[in-house]
Amino acid sequence: MIQTSAPVSVIGTGIMGGSIAKHLLTAGHPLHVHTRTRAKAEPLLQGGACWHDTPESAAAAGEVVITMLGLPGDVEQVYFGSDGSGGIIRAAASGSLLIDMTTSSPRLAERIATAATARGLAAIDAPVSGGDLGARTGTLVIMVGGDQASFERAKPLLEILGKAVTRLGPPGSGQRCKLANQVAVAVGMVAWCEALTMAEAGGLDPAAVQQVISGGAAGSWALTNLAPRALAGDNAPGFLVQHLVKDIHLAREEAERTGCDLPGLEVAERLYEALAAAGQGQAGTQALFRWYEVRQRLHADGGTP
Amino acid sequence: MIQTSAPVSVIGTGIMGGSIAKHLLTAGHPLHVHTRTRAKAEPLLQGGACWHDTPESAAAAGEVVITMLGLPGDVEQVYFGSDGSGGIIRAAASGSLLIDMTTSSPRLAERIATAATARGLAAIDAPVSGGDLGARTGTLVIMVGGDQASFERAKPLLEILGKAVTRLGPPGSGQRCKLANQVAVAVGMVAWCEALTMAEAGGLDPAAVQQVISGGAAGSWALTNLAPRALAGDNAPGFLVQHLVKDIHLAREEAERTGCDLPGLEVAERLYEALAAAGQGQAGTQALFRWYEVRQRLHADGGTP
Repeated sequence: MIQTSAPVSVIGTGIMGGSIAKHLLTAGHPLHVHTRTRAKAEPLLQGGACWHDTPESAAAAGEVVITMLGLPGDVEQVYFGSDGSGGIIRAAASGSLLIDMTTSSPRLAERIATAATARGLAAIDAPVSGGDLGARTGTLVIMVGGDQASFERAKPLLEILGKAVTRLGPPGSGQRCKLANQVAVAVGMVAWCEALTMAEAGGLDPAAVQQVISGGAAGSWALTNLAPRALAGDNAPGFLVQHLVKDIHLAREEAERTGCDLPGLEVAERLYEALAAAGQGQAGTQALFRWYEVRQRLHADGGTP
Repeated sequence: MIQTSAPVSVIGTGIMGGSIAKHLLTAGHPLHVHTRTRAKAEPLLQGGACWHDTPESAAAAGEVVITMLGLPGDVEQVYFGSDGSGGIIRAAASGSLLIDMTTSSPRLAERIATAATARGLAAIDAPVSGGDLGARTGTLVIMVGGDQASFERAKPLLEILGKAVTRLGPPGSGQRCKLANQVAVAVGMVAWCEALTMAEAGGLDPAAVQQVISGGAAGSWALTNLAPRALAGDNAPGFLVQHLVKDIHLAREEAERTGCDLPGLEVAERLYEALAAAGQGQAGTQALFRWYEVRQRLHADGGTP
């Protein structure tokens, strides 16, 4: 069990990691931070957190080390090092607990856990859902992969950050659950986008259709929460297109490894890749709806979608 | 406005039509019925409904004529007749209101409305969602296409049957909204089936994953209500695979007519057609999940899914 007096290091204090670090600081943990752009850590430093110039230095200071990074490549670099930096598995104090909350590769999570154990550390994967709002309000859903003892040890700390903390199985299982979540998210976007695209093309008011169908068997969180934004032309990001593309790629890798044929996910991948390639990577995922409209127009003009 | 003393005819008293007829009888409407298999109308006849041997005879007796049939071909035959029978548009009393509640073709609904108007009748399309349970409890969502005056006239009657009665536009619009609903339903099934298939193949307990992800951005009515049944091996029908296949075909027709390219719907069509071809037409739509499992096994064995 992690005591509230235990020093915690947070590596990666962007939108998600920043909120997470803030909750830990508020809960009374001595906080050590490192992030690529120091300015992003400023509010935490003003709140009493201690700055470190490298991930290794930050990791060495914590009894618990939390990482919230961008891509699996970033995770690999921070954990295993590169270009002479040793990586946090080498730098962490003996007995400490490493928690990667990045949405990343299940296989990498397995490798990290194995390497950590060999060094006398513990490591769990604990990706989240709930977005920036869930991080800010401490209501994340946290999906954990790791051995039972490490999970029990991490749980009180993770419960500061989330409303539901569940262990799904051995290392990598948290990532596998998160990727399953992202498969349902990605294909679910295709579902309502195609429904409202067809309705609009048939002369109906898609906003009226959204209202009528969202309360029944066609209902979904996305139809209720994202479709109205898309219909209003608001593509401000809750979740970025380019992040979903990354997650879809991780899911495809996992599906291939386990021999899963997922034709719906392939469609979502093709569409979101095209959307990102068209310069919409920084838009919210609901931008897919306008993309269908653009494709319909090209289709009608005889062009290539 | 339809008074409660107005005689109503219901043609097609299967699971849905039977419940609808019962509500109208209970509300005090003199009821006339016809259905293909007379035995299915027995409970209504015992409740005081009047039996008719043909759709035409039933239609002639009602101020309002409700049809709830199987396929668009059945609707066409009942409205326009065949083999010497004249069809209900010819048989209905002048001034009466025809309401087709079958999920059917938007184009056919337009043709019916035009033909009805030419004969001094009114006709609206009013397909429903909410299934057998919604019909039994009078909580259907009813999607109406037709002119405003006919909608206002029908509304009090439809409100006996449903919790939400919405006009979407001119004739055919109710069907177009219902088909949009079915697009979201069909592709939404693919979404959670692929998510849980990948989770299971990765060694996770899919029931645990379902619980963890259903409360967030991946959540949907189907993930909450149908996935647990599928995971428990319960494929008893709420909604039949063969009915969803029919609706997907209608949606594909509509999408082609309006120039919509809907790749997600194509995937759902291919999967559900294969499921029906494998003898699962009478199963509930959640049977798609076990189908993914079967496909994975064939995939792993190098066979053709």
